Amino acid sequence: MWPSLEWKENRLVLIDQRHLPYKQIYVECRSHEDVARSIEKMIIRGAPAIGVAAAYGVALGIASVENESELDSVFRDVHDRLSVTRPTARNLFWALERMEKKFKENRNFPLDDLKTTLIKEARSIEKEDVEMNRKIGKWGKSLIKDGTVILTHCNAGALATAGYGTALGVIRAAVEEGKSIRVYADETRPVLQGARLTCWELMRDNIPVTLITDSTAGLLMKQKKISLVITGADRITRNGDVANKIGTYSAAVLAKENNIPFYVAAPTNTIDFSLKRGDEIPIEQRDADEVRKIGDKLIAPGGVPVENPAFDVTPAAYVTAIISQHGIARPPYEKNLSVWE
Amino acid sequence: MWPSLEWKENRLVLIDQRHLPYKQIYVECRSHEDVARSIEKMIIRGAPAIGVAAAYGVALGIASVENESELDSVFRDVHDRLSVTRPTARNLFWALERMEKKFKENRNFPLDDLKTTLIKEARSIEKEDVEMNRKIGKWGKSLIKDGTVILTHCNAGALATAGYGTALGVIRAAVEEGKSIRVYADETRPVLQGARLTCWELMRDNIPVTLITDSTAGLLMKQKKISLVITGADRITRNGDVANKIGTYSAAVLAKENNIPFYVAAPTNTIDFSLKRGDEIPIEQRDADEVRKIGDKLIAPGGVPVENPAFDVTPAAYVTAIISQHGIARPPYEKNLSVWE
Repeated sequence: MWPSLEWKENRLVLIDQRHLPYKQIYVECRSHEDVARSIEKMIIRGAPAIGVAAAYGVALGIASVENESELDSVFRDVHDRLSVTRPTARNLFWALERMEKKFKENRNFPLDDLKTTLIKEARSIEKEDVEMNRKIGKWGKSLIKDGTVILTHCNAGALATAGYGTALGVIRAAVEEGKSIRVYADETRPVLQGARLTCWELMRDNIPVTLITDSTAGLLMKQKKISLVITGADRITRNGDVANKIGTYSAAVLAKENNIPFYVAAPTNTIDFSLKRGDEIPIEQRDADEVRKIGDKLIAPGGVPVENPAFDVTPAAYVTAIISQHGIARPPYEKNLSVWE
Repeated sequence: MWPSLEWKENRLVLIDQRHLPYKQIYVECRSHEDVARSIEKMIIRGAPAIGVAAAYGVALGIASVENESELDSVFRDVHDRLSVTRPTARNLFWALERMEKKFKENRNFPLDDLKTTLIKEARSIEKEDVEMNRKIGKWGKSLIKDGTVILTHCNAGALATAGYGTALGVIRAAVEEGKSIRVYADETRPVLQGARLTCWELMRDNIPVTLITDSTAGLLMKQKKISLVITGADRITRNGDVANKIGTYSAAVLAKENNIPFYVAAPTNTIDFSLKRGDEIPIEQRDADEVRKIGDKLIAPGGVPVENPAFDVTPAAYVTAIISQHGIARPPYEKNLSVWE
């Protein structure tokens, strides 16, 4: 499995996902600001991967402190900078909270020890992310029969995590078990994570994948060509509402209309137990040019107004089950997710 | 209103819609083969526009005949060539049938008279198309209140017809009446007729339009930002099932789920009374590179398999009403469309 990120010689190295699959360009982050900008520009994306990167961002921020008297103010600046990069994914805030806890616990140890401890904590978060994904895969594969045709939206793969993937982790686990699986990948406009990243990941793993436009999924469901849908998540609320890449809601409605199971695969740090319902989740609006252009090429009249929400919320009523590292939760989610709190 | 086509000095001049809105390039068709290729390559597209172009194609084909003894075989060749250009739009076959009738009625007149008659017939088809669209607009505007926010998919505008448009004709008629209307245009992957053509048409008419990705429509419906959906049609069966651009079915399901009316605007020559149900409609599969590339730019791994159906079928159960030049039909369509046969 190739990594979306790697900690190497006290730097965080990212593969620039904006250029995949055409070019493999690596970006070195030497400061928390480098990490923050990489998250904002979607050099790294995917809720779990953003969380891991932010943890390293905190470690890098503190690594730059030379005078202990600045520690608290630097921590606050670093934390605040990283927390405004992208608003929707829960994992970002979860990772910042965990790093803050570790910072506070070790605040009064010698500075060099604190720095080492924070790097170790970020490495643990990274390692645990891959382990959780393998567990998600283990649980999730029980839902997938031999011969299943799966629709997935966006990229919830190795590139969206520290490795293995959530939704693609479930697919990988089923394939590793010897099951014959075919995948339809929604291209996922506007940023095309499905076309660029999911197709690339699955082709590299020799898992049969067919690319479709987002609009084609409905027809294939109606034609009974799709057995189930599985996606990742950016934030899940107490009641089981799921924020995920724009278009997930449409896929879920179409799945329900066609009696197709709709599964969400995510580690429990994606669940925001502080929120009761999905309409409380902040939805990021991104730049109009993501829609007006593909690369540098205009695909619409230059000045046309655009709405470009990066995520939507799928109400729990459309979600057949949520798969985490701890197992498979089904409705009522209010009750069945709470055991993971 | 700018035309999608113009008959000029015995040639059919088309605006090359593949290059809109960036470049206005005109293509001259001097033969039925030129017309056939222009339809296949989507230089001209939109069910009514294809029908009109095909009528001119027949006229051009017969105009090339020098020896009366070849008339029948040339007519057959021309007819057959044009009829295999695109399989889904009913209007193409309707126009070919009408030209065939005129050909047969005038088969035994002097050759030059026959040629003139066929050109006149094509011009009538063109003129009637615009008139029908204005009538569709007149009926349709009664469904649209002041302040309505409308979602449309693909381009069912002046460029998809001989002028004025079907779905966009309804919007234009409401605006001409002084109603304040806002439009959301689905970009309509893969060929981007919404982003390129609908936005351009509406901006030129100063009708407020906002461009969204196809996946965003569901979220906006759920947020109650859309009052109604209106699209054109490529073929409608006796029972009210509607073949239209891929993604129309998804928009219709999402509209129903959110209690939003879903209207279809089309002249009656789009209705195929020979077909009972939508699953009898042939659905065109187009080239994989329409999805893999935008312009010349690859947006996915080069060799990835693709499914690229150009149309889907929306079952009548999702269609609130069908607007034709004769009025507004509501369910049961079996009964209420039959009066237009």
